[in-house]
Amino acid sequence: MSSIDIGLVGVGKIARDQHLPAIDSSPDFRLVATADPYTRLEGIDGYDSLAAMLDGVPDLQAVAICTPTHLRHSQARLALEHGKAVLLEKPPGATLSEVEDLEALAERRGCPMFAAWHSRFAPGVAQAREWLAEREIHRIEIEWKEDVRVWHPGQAWIWEPGGMGVFDPGINALSIVTEILPQPFFLRSARLAVPSNCQTPIAAELAFSDAQETPIQAAFDFRQTGPQTWDIHVDTEDGRLSLTQGGSRLVIDGQVVLEAEEREYPEMYDHFAELVTGRVSDVDVAPLRHVADAFLLGRRETVDAFVE
Amino acid sequence: MSSIDIGLVGVGKIARDQHLPAIDSSPDFRLVATADPYTRLEGIDGYDSLAAMLDGVPDLQAVAICTPTHLRHSQARLALEHGKAVLLEKPPGATLSEVEDLEALAERRGCPMFAAWHSRFAPGVAQAREWLAEREIHRIEIEWKEDVRVWHPGQAWIWEPGGMGVFDPGINALSIVTEILPQPFFLRSARLAVPSNCQTPIAAELAFSDAQETPIQAAFDFRQTGPQTWDIHVDTEDGRLSLTQGGSRLVIDGQVVLEAEEREYPEMYDHFAELVTGRVSDVDVAPLRHVADAFLLGRRETVDAFVE
Repeated sequence: MSSIDIGLVGVGKIARDQHLPAIDSSPDFRLVATADPYTRLEGIDGYDSLAAMLDGVPDLQAVAICTPTHLRHSQARLALEHGKAVLLEKPPGATLSEVEDLEALAERRGCPMFAAWHSRFAPGVAQAREWLAEREIHRIEIEWKEDVRVWHPGQAWIWEPGGMGVFDPGINALSIVTEILPQPFFLRSARLAVPSNCQTPIAAELAFSDAQETPIQAAFDFRQTGPQTWDIHVDTEDGRLSLTQGGSRLVIDGQVVLEAEEREYPEMYDHFAELVTGRVSDVDVAPLRHVADAFLLGRRETVDAFVE
Repeated sequence: MSSIDIGLVGVGKIARDQHLPAIDSSPDFRLVATADPYTRLEGIDGYDSLAAMLDGVPDLQAVAICTPTHLRHSQARLALEHGKAVLLEKPPGATLSEVEDLEALAERRGCPMFAAWHSRFAPGVAQAREWLAEREIHRIEIEWKEDVRVWHPGQAWIWEPGGMGVFDPGINALSIVTEILPQPFFLRSARLAVPSNCQTPIAAELAFSDAQETPIQAAFDFRQTGPQTWDIHVDTEDGRLSLTQGGSRLVIDGQVVLEAEEREYPEMYDHFAELVTGRVSDVDVAPLRHVADAFLLGRRETVDAFVE
């Protein structure tokens, strides 16, 4: 039916790779405008800024914000002030205070706000969550190791303050784990390996536990060459649950339960459509809060300079 | 009437310097027990742990938690699980996730929880808040500069992960500013000066703004010798408000409006008594959230080693 008119703010790599195809294939959304000072799309009304787009297309119902993180807060504020439903790429702000502010504003304005964590829409996540809800958990291991040169070529912002370093992918793992575990958990200690020429960690070892002292270990590493690893293993009273390949493959007690091609962004937009239609928000700051906790509590160790 | 039986968890420096005198002079609280593996007080039942105290004094109504930060979460959890009202020294947890968890638990259990920020009870704070509520604010300057050798002799934990460095006093400034300003504000950039032999900053320069782009500048420094500075200046349409000497002195447009001896902890316990009696919580995580934001977003610069 394509009943929701949406505008896209920021037409960069993530917008082109993921948001545009997802919106194009969505049965719910119709892309009517873009806002980007440098880029326009053929056949779509293009504006230089969100303000100009809001003026030019007053009937817009929703906006998706895919700009660099430090721009998101003021843009989301503007969209909410204009009564629009807002989807925010992850992370939903440069700081936790920004997200808190947006959540309160969305509530006051009665606008749906969606702090989107795309990895939560990986194929195996919902089933893993369901299976774990009823079981006693003994131990969790998270391994999120990828080659930054392959996945983030030339993206120097990752190494600058606010760029989060290895937590840029690591926050995806945290978004899954906070989704599938029935209990909250807390950082107990962390080691952050920071290259001598960078502001942000290239690797991190994190030790969490929940209130029952269940150990939760996470290893994030940007220096992985060869096979890449995006795995979560949960040992339970009924055997091991493994969510691997970023959530595309679910193995329970040695049985492959699910192996599917990922459709994270299409599923994410399906969920956004439900939020817009139901006039409700979905803002869970937990993944970003864990990252901030790691920067607050982590022990920093200087490692070799990173040269791309 | 001394109607609220309270137990003190952690009988260290802050408990002796501030909590005990405040409880002693309180018309509402009666100290009935302490929990500390190393220290007991004459004439008061002493237990080695919170668990032992809860067993030994089942009728206890409230506990004040003054232990090192990393112990507070599990202790506050235990106290809340036993249905006690809980006061937490600042900061209310080692991480934001811990505080979030405690707040949710207190809500579920129907127990009053008080994340206490003592500086908010400085003499001039309430009046400053009231005066600012009705005025347009143009600019804010925060200067919080003290000599760490004078105020924190031998406290090596300050320089360890989680010790927060200059944010240990700086969070007091942030607790006042978040209390007196009518609007939330957001960190835009930060510079953290970290001694080469320490994990945490010895000085910080923070640039915040609110949604109206009002500039809010903060300078924290632990290297101040000579006169010490704990000042907040707010320029408004009706002149400058200055809250100085940690909030003990209030000057508005050149007039000294208030100058009083500080009674922060007695006032704080008066407020806790109101919370306990009214069965309500007071948990504002904003000061700690700003600190976490600064660690997340701040640019770290290495400075001279700190030798005490």
